[in-house]
Amino acid sequence: MKQAKVRLYVEQALGAGQSVPLERDQAHYLFGVMRLALGDPVLLFNGRDGEWRAVVAEAGKRAGSLACEAQTRPLQPPPDLWLIFAPIKKARTDFIVEKAAEMGAARILPVQTDFTNSERIRQDRLQAHAVEAAEQCGGTFVPEVAGLQRLDRLLADWPDDRQLMFCDEAEAGSARRLGAASGDKWAILIGPEGGFSEAERARLAAHPQTHVVSLGPRILRADTAAVAAMTLWQQALGDWA
Amino acid sequence: MKQAKVRLYVEQALGAGQSVPLERDQAHYLFGVMRLALGDPVLLFNGRDGEWRAVVAEAGKRAGSLACEAQTRPLQPPPDLWLIFAPIKKARTDFIVEKAAEMGAARILPVQTDFTNSERIRQDRLQAHAVEAAEQCGGTFVPEVAGLQRLDRLLADWPDDRQLMFCDEAEAGSARRLGAASGDKWAILIGPEGGFSEAERARLAAHPQTHVVSLGPRILRADTAAVAAMTLWQQALGDWA
Repeated sequence: MKQAKVRLYVEQALGAGQSVPLERDQAHYLFGVMRLALGDPVLLFNGRDGEWRAVVAEAGKRAGSLACEAQTRPLQPPPDLWLIFAPIKKARTDFIVEKAAEMGAARILPVQTDFTNSERIRQDRLQAHAVEAAEQCGGTFVPEVAGLQRLDRLLADWPDDRQLMFCDEAEAGSARRLGAASGDKWAILIGPEGGFSEAERARLAAHPQTHVVSLGPRILRADTAAVAAMTLWQQALGDWA
Repeated sequence: MKQAKVRLYVEQALGAGQSVPLERDQAHYLFGVMRLALGDPVLLFNGRDGEWRAVVAEAGKRAGSLACEAQTRPLQPPPDLWLIFAPIKKARTDFIVEKAAEMGAARILPVQTDFTNSERIRQDRLQAHAVEAAEQCGGTFVPEVAGLQRLDRLLADWPDDRQLMFCDEAEAGSARRLGAASGDKWAILIGPEGGFSEAERARLAAHPQTHVVSLGPRILRADTAAVAAMTLWQQALGDWA
């Protein structure tokens, strides 16, 4: 059986015999860029139905369709882990979203903090980065990128049953580690460059769900801290264990 | 006392009363870009003498000098950890070097593997990335970037007293963890995109110093894997413990 050269995220339901119509840019990618022909295989996933092998049923310059044949992998949802971070520079923000998808976060929440005042994010572009990361890394799940919100509001409405791993750069060098599990819903909060304000720190300290964790003696950039924190969490409490 | 806005890596020895002449690009950065004036403070480090506070003693467009006043932090050398990886794309290679400096690797070794045939690297450019990362993250140490070498030769001459943490993407999903320490000299080997050849795998398996470690059930890009692996190592055996 011919090996699929392309792995594609689609919105449609996937199942045996299902026909999957292609959008214009997907058709361009498959037939214009990757030069697939009728009958060529493609791997598909939609974040819900696992991974499926499909073949090209119709191919045009701007349209086409795939026919789903068989499931190649079941859905592997990540643990119920949120990644909360304050976007600053475009390239590093893109990177954090990519890494969150690779490392197995279920939801990505960009926040405004007292010391970061990014007024808006391109939510659709960030979501596309998460999709692309899942396509590349063989994931069957795509984390949702939430809209930008203020950290203080997010904390004010914080769900009682969700633990919060707070990676505080003021803790650099201290020996705190991730504590014992207290439920399976978690969030990781990465400090923005410039750190948190005293008000934010006090609010975080007041939450009984907060677990302060050190990321070692060196100051890490936010994108590095995101990967390091997700590694510690996945190893201690997630699906690496 | 005025807060230093700039942290700069220099080659010269640092010590109380030491005068540090500036190179042309350093003078341009300090006086042209950052607009420092006579008497303004700068933090200096050279990878050997810790971090020093200095002040501008002479300022010109293309030259100048700083006068070292007092040590602000001692040298904090990282553990004796090498990071070995196969460079492919420029941006991700730069990123791996940056992350190795932030995460506390002592030495960075780019290698050619059977499935990667990058013929050359810009060693000077990569070294500059390591310097910049140390400047940014408050490090007092800069890891050396070695010249490109073949992985099989590196393994053939492998030092008996250095353990090797081998992050094998074929191990994705298995439950292997970093074993008990066997000495304080280590190296982390990150699999290239495309994986290792059977010959490389056999050679690695034959080394008694090899510790195979899984980085979870998802396939990680090489740059993500580098940060994740260094996190696991630092937490288990390095200076995060």
